Amino acid sequence: MTKFVYDFNEGNGSMKDLLGGKGANLAEMTSLGLPVPRGFTISTEACIEYLNSNRQLSKDLELEIFKHLKQLENKTNKSFNSSSNLLLVSVRSGARSSMPGMMDTILNLGLNDKNVEVLAKATKNSAFAYDCYRRLLQMYGDVVYGIDSHYFENYLTHYKSKNNLIYDQDLTTDDLKEIVKAFKGIYKKVLNKEFPQNPNIQLLEAVKAVFSSWNNERARVYRSLNDIPSDWGTAVTVQEMVFGNTGNESGTGVLFTRNPTTGEKEIFGEYLMNAQGEDVVAGIRTPVPISELQIDNPNIYLQIERICEQLEKHYEDMQDIEFTIENNQLFILQTRDGKRTAKSAFKIAVDLVEEGYTTKEKMISKINPQSIDQLLHPVFKPTALDEATVISAVGLPASPGAATGKVYFDAETAVEKSLAGQKVILVRHETSPEDISGMNVSEAIVTSRGGMTSHAAVVARGMGKCCVVGCEELEINEKKRQIKYNGGILNEGEVISVDGTTGIIYLGAVDKKATETDQSFYTVMEWAREIADLKVRMNAETIEDIKAGLEFQAAGIGLARTEHMFFSKERLQEMRKFILSARKTERLKALENIMTYQITDFTKIFEQTKDLPITIRLLDPPLHEFLPHSEQEIEEVAKQQGLTNTQLKQRISELNEVNPMLGHRGCRLAISYPELYLMQVEAIMRSAAKLNKKGISVKPEIMIPLVGMVEELEQLTKKIKIHIEKLLEELNTNVEYEIGTMVELPRACLVADELAETADFFSFGTNDLTQMTYGFSRDDAGKFINQYKSDQILEDDPFQTVDKDGVGRLIETAVKLGRSTKEQMDIGVCGELGGDPKSIEFFHEVGLDYVSCSPFRVPIAQLAAAQSTIKYDTIKGEVFS
Amino acid sequence: MTKFVYDFNEGNGSMKDLLGGKGANLAEMTSLGLPVPRGFTISTEACIEYLNSNRQLSKDLELEIFKHLKQLENKTNKSFNSSSNLLLVSVRSGARSSMPGMMDTILNLGLNDKNVEVLAKATKNSAFAYDCYRRLLQMYGDVVYGIDSHYFENYLTHYKSKNNLIYDQDLTTDDLKEIVKAFKGIYKKVLNKEFPQNPNIQLLEAVKAVFSSWNNERARVYRSLNDIPSDWGTAVTVQEMVFGNTGNESGTGVLFTRNPTTGEKEIFGEYLMNAQGEDVVAGIRTPVPISELQIDNPNIYLQIERICEQLEKHYEDMQDIEFTIENNQLFILQTRDGKRTAKSAFKIAVDLVEEGYTTKEKMISKINPQSIDQLLHPVFKPTALDEATVISAVGLPASPGAATGKVYFDAETAVEKSLAGQKVILVRHETSPEDISGMNVSEAIVTSRGGMTSHAAVVARGMGKCCVVGCEELEINEKKRQIKYNGGILNEGEVISVDGTTGIIYLGAVDKKATETDQSFYTVMEWAREIADLKVRMNAETIEDIKAGLEFQAAGIGLARTEHMFFSKERLQEMRKFILSARKTERLKALENIMTYQITDFTKIFEQTKDLPITIRLLDPPLHEFLPHSEQEIEEVAKQQGLTNTQLKQRISELNEVNPMLGHRGCRLAISYPELYLMQVEAIMRSAAKLNKKGISVKPEIMIPLVGMVEELEQLTKKIKIHIEKLLEELNTNVEYEIGTMVELPRACLVADELAETADFFSFGTNDLTQMTYGFSRDDAGKFINQYKSDQILEDDPFQTVDKDGVGRLIETAVKLGRSTKEQMDIGVCGELGGDPKSIEFFHEVGLDYVSCSPFRVPIAQLAAAQSTIKYDTIKGEVFS
Repeated sequence: MTKFVYDFNEGNGSMKDLLGGKGANLAEMTSLGLPVPRGFTISTEACIEYLNSNRQLSKDLELEIFKHLKQLENKTNKSFNSSSNLLLVSVRSGARSSMPGMMDTILNLGLNDKNVEVLAKATKNSAFAYDCYRRLLQMYGDVVYGIDSHYFENYLTHYKSKNNLIYDQDLTTDDLKEIVKAFKGIYKKVLNKEFPQNPNIQLLEAVKAVFSSWNNERARVYRSLNDIPSDWGTAVTVQEMVFGNTGNESGTGVLFTRNPTTGEKEIFGEYLMNAQGEDVVAGIRTPVPISELQIDNPNIYLQIERICEQLEKHYEDMQDIEFTIENNQLFILQTRDGKRTAKSAFKIAVDLVEEGYTTKEKMISKINPQSIDQLLHPVFKPTALDEATVISAVGLPASPGAATGKVYFDAETAVEKSLAGQKVILVRHETSPEDISGMNVSEAIVTSRGGMTSHAAVVARGMGKCCVVGCEELEINEKKRQIKYNGGILNEGEVISVDGTTGIIYLGAVDKKATETDQSFYTVMEWAREIADLKVRMNAETIEDIKAGLEFQAAGIGLARTEHMFFSKERLQEMRKFILSARKTERLKALENIMTYQITDFTKIFEQTKDLPITIRLLDPPLHEFLPHSEQEIEEVAKQQGLTNTQLKQRISELNEVNPMLGHRGCRLAISYPELYLMQVEAIMRSAAKLNKKGISVKPEIMIPLVGMVEELEQLTKKIKIHIEKLLEELNTNVEYEIGTMVELPRACLVADELAETADFFSFGTNDLTQMTYGFSRDDAGKFINQYKSDQILEDDPFQTVDKDGVGRLIETAVKLGRSTKEQMDIGVCGELGGDPKSIEFFHEVGLDYVSCSPFRVPIAQLAAAQSTIKYDTIKGEVFS
Repeated sequence: MTKFVYDFNEGNGSMKDLLGGKGANLAEMTSLGLPVPRGFTISTEACIEYLNSNRQLSKDLELEIFKHLKQLENKTNKSFNSSSNLLLVSVRSGARSSMPGMMDTILNLGLNDKNVEVLAKATKNSAFAYDCYRRLLQMYGDVVYGIDSHYFENYLTHYKSKNNLIYDQDLTTDDLKEIVKAFKGIYKKVLNKEFPQNPNIQLLEAVKAVFSSWNNERARVYRSLNDIPSDWGTAVTVQEMVFGNTGNESGTGVLFTRNPTTGEKEIFGEYLMNAQGEDVVAGIRTPVPISELQIDNPNIYLQIERICEQLEKHYEDMQDIEFTIENNQLFILQTRDGKRTAKSAFKIAVDLVEEGYTTKEKMISKINPQSIDQLLHPVFKPTALDEATVISAVGLPASPGAATGKVYFDAETAVEKSLAGQKVILVRHETSPEDISGMNVSEAIVTSRGGMTSHAAVVARGMGKCCVVGCEELEINEKKRQIKYNGGILNEGEVISVDGTTGIIYLGAVDKKATETDQSFYTVMEWAREIADLKVRMNAETIEDIKAGLEFQAAGIGLARTEHMFFSKERLQEMRKFILSARKTERLKALENIMTYQITDFTKIFEQTKDLPITIRLLDPPLHEFLPHSEQEIEEVAKQQGLTNTQLKQRISELNEVNPMLGHRGCRLAISYPELYLMQVEAIMRSAAKLNKKGISVKPEIMIPLVGMVEELEQLTKKIKIHIEKLLEELNTNVEYEIGTMVELPRACLVADELAETADFFSFGTNDLTQMTYGFSRDDAGKFINQYKSDQILEDDPFQTVDKDGVGRLIETAVKLGRSTKEQMDIGVCGELGGDPKSIEFFHEVGLDYVSCSPFRVPIAQLAAAQSTIKYDTIKGEVFS
């Protein structure tokens, strides 16, 4: 005969298939010798047999259940029929994995008209006993007999209002007795049946109800959605109830085995004597720090200390434990890995590894990479936030941080006020490259339009600067220099606070608290870099950004955007001369001037990055981005360039594009104006040569953007190589360099084998690739991506987490095709997704060499990369076997 | 011993590998018994042996060559040493396929100081003889000895200028004698060698030179670029020279076996007695119609008649023949399929098939589908064009036709003037949907911006209306109502002529000639439809267009664009109410009104298409396309809709998008506003139900555009189905329908297996798919696509011919994935490429069921579809075996 019922001490944590998740966990704790309330589990096989036998419990099974019930009574020295040591049990369902939709829990099973008095006597608390009874009646009626719980709720509400009572705890024993009576009446009315007074019958009915709930509609729908086979079945766990409120020898508490805020090795928690768990939560009595238990009950405290150490060793992590003391006897109700702050996570990880409790790999795989954001940016004090006035709550948290400053509506004023010593916040409909100087001096950037990958968001993240975008309910009036918000008007120069982690904007200043990293953070990051297969580079071109990334030990630069170097005043002027001048000599002169600037830039950059790999992207944006927009600017620029306003407007209109994202940009510009790229590579190579002569071996990786056709790449690469070879001969030196391409068009992925014939390396530009694959403009899609997410059309924003089915397939194809031509080709990713942990796992899986992201995301990416390696090696059995 | 030399009568057309293309063709004509000048071919194997033997002709091969030379002398009764019947030969190279880069031809080999006098006597033309000699010296020096031909050219130029002579034919015998002497001097000077006087040595040296040229650099580069194996080798053909200028019994001519203009069955051509081919070309003497030869030399004419019939039978097509008569003996120098006009092509095809000369399949595969354009549109008289003033020559020929009319710059005026009886031409920077009414009344549309797939181009082609786009040198001033062009100013109301076939715009009216189709056109098209696997539907929604397509027997409608139905005045007003009204009741009322219009539209359409399949695309463009642009319009619309100008502008700015192509459009609109699509499907189903009740069984195919995610399609399909089922129940009827999707995003192709779970059919939208795959905006790419083509980065504009490597791979993937889910799924293409012959072949190859194109391209597509089937079946050996 199959064994269907397992005592907790007959199982362990690995028996989830048979005992369900809960049953297996309780068995595990029991097998560790912990004082877990005793009980047994009826197996999933019993469930299947029940369902296959026309929903009949076999006599054998009934006998087996009662045999285990008897054993339970013996072990606990309690009984359903005892008038002193009353046995009450909880009955819970438990499938292999947690599964919503099934009946969950019945507490206090065993209570009846007689036992309720026994419980009242034992706890010296009739109100508690009758409250337990009325709860049992309610739960049991609902889950076992399907009595609509509204019947009970409505009566309770009605009763309280009739008696002018507000809270459940205001109910007296008399009230509760009347309610119990009424609840039993509901059974009679609805079912024409009495509530079963016999605890044995209560138990059998409850077991049948749990088994049956495996096949109720919600459970079946959930299974089919999640591909869970219907023949798994559910187990039923029956466990002794313990009460912390039976007197002063009893109590209840929660604790962490280490301090979850600081990570210090100390038992941290609180407890209440003569109380139930709810009492702690309800806040009627104030719990006491766990340290006092050492004085109140040194014996129990000693047990707890031992258990803490044992559990940390067993689960290899800091634990969060619930316990109850019943008549001076300690029971552990639950233990699980404890939640902790980002800061403490690192300390705990380092301590546990150093104390020999666990391995680097295990601790690293448990830290949430995103939590590093918390660590690296200051945050508002939660208490201060509670009191602050919200003026926008719908913005997207584009770049984390907590910033307070005065509002300005244009870059120029922001710069001016900043120079005057003010802390400023730039607020715009949306930003454009001309705003960069203003963004650079601002504490935060706020826009009313755009999504997570809008210009403002991308640039701010690159700068590690707090940014909230798409605050659609802010009506910005740039002319009046005002913001209209729901509740008032905010004028230029008034103060707001911006929370880049939540996307909320507050009126006035909000207090901040600093967060700081300590040695353990750096230790963990060092481990992560050792473990990770995938290298992490940074997207950076300013000296500040590069220094930030180098502090995090970025493995080089994966994307240096040269166009960002064109937007300061004098350079923009030269660039405009190049675009606007009719005379070739002037155009070439302009380029020469720009080259001088670029040589200075690249030299400074190379001095930082030295022999680290550095990928430099040649000019990418369309030319119209360099031209002025407003009437005033047009007038100024026309004067500067010696044109009439009409001529300038004519040129602007010629360069204007209906869909600039799909327009004349990237390598297409260089096909039209090869001199642009040649100037840039000359500046790169001259700078590199300069450093090489000083003994610093720079090896630039020159990247051509927006290539869709092999012919584009061939033509440009050839021209560039000829130019470089001539230059090096002229300089009489040798500099190693590579020429590769950004893979950011679907077509590039499809012809990657051909591209690899010419390209020395690939770097995926996931922003554009996602835009083209979905046909989404990142500037416009914000409008509907949110709705798509709430309608569950999109699970994740594909600009934030790689879309494996679409974009991911193209990336996989490109990697395979590229390596089919050049097996050892260096392939990385430099788009926004390079800093997203879920995406990083995917990039690791498809075999990339590195990811590149904003400097402030480098540690996040390093951790995620290590986690992916650990996960992969675990699957291959290399680490934990 | 291997046989290396083949007399013409020892070979045939199939021996290209051994004899080269030329040698095999001459052998083929000889084997037909035609009077071909006699000769022999030295095989490609001989070439390989020569190259492998350190460039030595073996003694055996030399003997074999001289044996065949001897035979040639015997057959022709001519000899290198004869003083009366002089043998001269041509020596030509000939690989399997024509291959530039190798030495080509030496004529008149055999001439020397002595023989030149013999030739002078025979032709009674010393100047001719010496001219032949100096040409031989020049060609021989160049190709056999590698003497730079500039030496000869420079001398000749110098000689002429010194003697005040302009043309070669001005040279007298004395002049030529002096030149011959000088040329021989060049041999001496450059090579320190004499020109070989012995014709046998001339011949051997020439053969060696041809063989060696197989491995010269140009030939090797060409081979490696075209994947031609280097071990093919080249053959050498040696052929008797014949002269049409030996007296009045000699002559030369060209002829077509049928009239290449009308297709009539009559020998058509001209000839000159006592002349060489060059004389006909040089235009010094006027050739005589071939019919006169019947009188001049009935015997020869009879031979020609017989040969014409024989060749048409053999080559199964009308032939273009070159002939020479030498001393009353007819020689056929060349025969090939004759070029012909579109009109005659159809007549000739039908006649040849009916006369039993060939098969339908063979004739169909020879007609250029594009030539149908010529047939269906009137054209300008070429003589009139020669005299007309060109005002723009850089425009793109977006839609064929020849139109003359008065210039207007806005749709409204165009409509007004057209109603007043004028023929108008709409000239715009670019067109937008609001211009449709104006385009509809115009003879032609001209724009200064945009490419082959700009709005103007696409709509005009759909209307079958003459259109030229991207006339960048026309400066249109809409305010002044003027066009500035290089040479003057054109005011509103002045007349221009537009050639939609060349893209050229002319000043004033230009005379036209009508072209008409005759029965043979319809006969061929009927054959084509019978043969083709691929069906051809039309893209159409106006009754005029549908009627046009039905006349060409389109197999249904592949794309009916519902948004085109929204742009007439009243409808636009309702649509704007839907977009702008704040009150829900008003919005729904607006939709209801639009539905009434749509029911009328669909009913009219279904009355035309009856039981033919019809795919209706639900609303696709972004909402801002329906809103006004100019200040004046904004004022009007604001008044109409009861808004302030500011409110309307605010809403317009809200809906404005940075990259509208990648914005809130297609199914994304319907996710936001499901009521839009539900209104449309209700209109479709009500119309279909109405006709069904009359016994006309309409089965609408409802198409959801711009789907990228399976969730979009599922959600919308579900809503639509529920709405339809409810409606049909209400109407108490049943209408069959399908719901499918447009596949036009790269992502849709990648998840096509999932889409096919929900979609009943797929239709590829190649415009958008190409835009996204390349990252090209069709509105903007015109600027650089032309440069890309001239730089050979692009072979074809991917918006005009499918890009097999990129877009094509995605299409293939989607077809495979889609059919892996639904084996029998109907898959078509409805984008612009559906009307392009090269693309149609690709669509046939990947297994589509139909293509859909503008009504006026339907016959082109039908023919291309038939050709693809024929080609495919030929490869499978089904037709011609």
